[in-house]
Amino acid sequence: MVSERNRPVPRVGMVGGGQLARMTHQAGIALGTDFRVLTGSAEDSAALVCGDVRLGDDKDAADLSAFGKSCDVVTFDHEHVPEPVLREVERAGVRLRPSRDALRYAQDKLRMRTRAHELGAPCPQWRAVTTLEHVSVFAGENGWPVVLKAASGGYDGKGVWVVSSVAEAETVLERAAEAGIQILAEERVDFRRELAVQVARSPHGQFAVYPVVETVQRDGICHEVIAPAPSLDEERATRAQELAIELAHALDVVGMLAVELFDTPDGIVINELAMRPHNSGHWSIEGARTSQFEQHLRAVLDLPLGSPRATAEYTVMANVLGGEDPHVYDRYVHVMAKDPGVKVHFYGKEVRPGRKIGHVTALGDDHEELLARVRDAAAYLKGDTQ
Amino acid sequence: MVSERNRPVPRVGMVGGGQLARMTHQAGIALGTDFRVLTGSAEDSAALVCGDVRLGDDKDAADLSAFGKSCDVVTFDHEHVPEPVLREVERAGVRLRPSRDALRYAQDKLRMRTRAHELGAPCPQWRAVTTLEHVSVFAGENGWPVVLKAASGGYDGKGVWVVSSVAEAETVLERAAEAGIQILAEERVDFRRELAVQVARSPHGQFAVYPVVETVQRDGICHEVIAPAPSLDEERATRAQELAIELAHALDVVGMLAVELFDTPDGIVINELAMRPHNSGHWSIEGARTSQFEQHLRAVLDLPLGSPRATAEYTVMANVLGGEDPHVYDRYVHVMAKDPGVKVHFYGKEVRPGRKIGHVTALGDDHEELLARVRDAAAYLKGDTQ
Repeated sequence: MVSERNRPVPRVGMVGGGQLARMTHQAGIALGTDFRVLTGSAEDSAALVCGDVRLGDDKDAADLSAFGKSCDVVTFDHEHVPEPVLREVERAGVRLRPSRDALRYAQDKLRMRTRAHELGAPCPQWRAVTTLEHVSVFAGENGWPVVLKAASGGYDGKGVWVVSSVAEAETVLERAAEAGIQILAEERVDFRRELAVQVARSPHGQFAVYPVVETVQRDGICHEVIAPAPSLDEERATRAQELAIELAHALDVVGMLAVELFDTPDGIVINELAMRPHNSGHWSIEGARTSQFEQHLRAVLDLPLGSPRATAEYTVMANVLGGEDPHVYDRYVHVMAKDPGVKVHFYGKEVRPGRKIGHVTALGDDHEELLARVRDAAAYLKGDTQ
Repeated sequence: MVSERNRPVPRVGMVGGGQLARMTHQAGIALGTDFRVLTGSAEDSAALVCGDVRLGDDKDAADLSAFGKSCDVVTFDHEHVPEPVLREVERAGVRLRPSRDALRYAQDKLRMRTRAHELGAPCPQWRAVTTLEHVSVFAGENGWPVVLKAASGGYDGKGVWVVSSVAEAETVLERAAEAGIQILAEERVDFRRELAVQVARSPHGQFAVYPVVETVQRDGICHEVIAPAPSLDEERATRAQELAIELAHALDVVGMLAVELFDTPDGIVINELAMRPHNSGHWSIEGARTSQFEQHLRAVLDLPLGSPRATAEYTVMANVLGGEDPHVYDRYVHVMAKDPGVKVHFYGKEVRPGRKIGHVTALGDDHEELLARVRDAAAYLKGDTQ
């Protein structure tokens, strides 16, 4: 891309200042491109480390347009910018990657399910529901419990309710109606485990697909990731990678696409999509030749993509959640002394119980041993073990 | 370390804003510690990407003391702060790591040679010279040519003169006398190749030693590094690592120490020392479990050191030097398309012919193939090949 602003390197603007922007900035330092963040507070995770921060409301069209015009290309740390705002920003001439059209599939689960169904991609049984009658009929066909999801706005388990009766569904539907939010009913998939696969796509249409990983979720939050997913048969792994490529192509994704999957006795089924670097890809910082963060930058800059090849037989990551004690740094000594091979990533965020404040990664040949090591480190950093 | 400023994580201050500070900042993002840079211009390599930059004269005692007092610990991107300035800064209560006492051995080659000789460490024949008579006597004992070195202030081949006669030595000695610089005469070592070894040392006295690497120098500038040094016999490799540990201990180094060595038919001989992250260790960003930059931070923070273990059989790095054409970014497309496995590091520095503006790294099993790949990428980025 030739910079329109007559600068020697292009500037990527990232909307949102969380840990994804922080780690994208980190990758951009090696790439030597300019990186600017739009975020609400100078104390946000990315703002603490980035040399070029614009403070503003990242969901406001005026702020976002002004920010976008100062950059060669704008990308996202989250999916929470409303579609009408994105429309206005695109009209102002800002180059969004992924585009508004693509992003809608990550923002709106109903739209995503509809499109995936059209494409013949494997989905759970699902239906848009607005009344208790709808839920009751859906449950009659697919059985209880039913998973109710807010079509937009949910993440990390928020906006998802597993209900076992019409009575339980009532509150969800009432509150959704009040908030003007569309609800989807989905069958509860009888899965053996959860998987995720990431693919990068550039505007040129080049793809780079990563190994399929196993994600371990608890309470709707990703706790651990094992890359690659142990004992996944090759056919199913290839099918998952092809599915990610098909979706990235069909939805015209630019940048990283994460496809979260259920691994069921009958095959893989799509759970969620994200069009940005994703928690299921943090392992790639050490575990792949090209991390998801560098790859996202290369894709949105329309540079040739880097090798997604694994650097070790297994890479295992555990998220570090905040505990009661905010003094995480004081516990580094123990974790680092005990395991000199574990990589600590801390996001600089204020510690609150249950909040993702960092992650730890280990690489080697034995995924069970690696999982034990990162669990141990994460638990210690949280303050659960002494 | 308990922060004296009642902050949840300590702040490392780095003196100097070059690429070493830039890459140290990058490593610090993962570590989650605060990182502040003192540098002369907002356009300096590290200042472009670091969220916390103080502009000032990094060789001025007042600027340096004020900067140091705002940090928990201060470390260095270069060795060019004069010793009297460091003395004043230490007196002001700033914690320097490495300390002024240790740094003197990296700043003053005469002091280094004297101390290394006392320790029984292998050095070339050397002598302090102030007159042509001294040079002549030294050459009579050790033969021509003689290597004359400025005791302080030299790097990247500047401050080193290979002279073949008394007449050639005359200009060097005259200019040194005018500038008040002490000159050393050293025998020209008949080496097969150059090696380097890095060790980290923490205030607790913990060491982490890296594999011995081969460095390929041209015109006094490091061009390529092969890690580990191919076909180096184990005894010699171990001796080099032990030597680095002995020196780090004896000189009370805190942080990274690089020992540049000559590999001669009779054994290894010390060439130079550096007490900071070093060009010979850039391979470790991808090639070691813990990069030299993270390790330097861990050492100066007195955290337990990370594993220096290699991540691949070989890692090969080539420096990217500036050429005539300043538009390096425009050449990314070719380099990245041709070799998706090569890692590009660009320092954001203004391109000037011969200036180190970045480096490229590749990992694999065949060091000759890797060397060809990184040479090719570096030559293309420089603009030597089309």
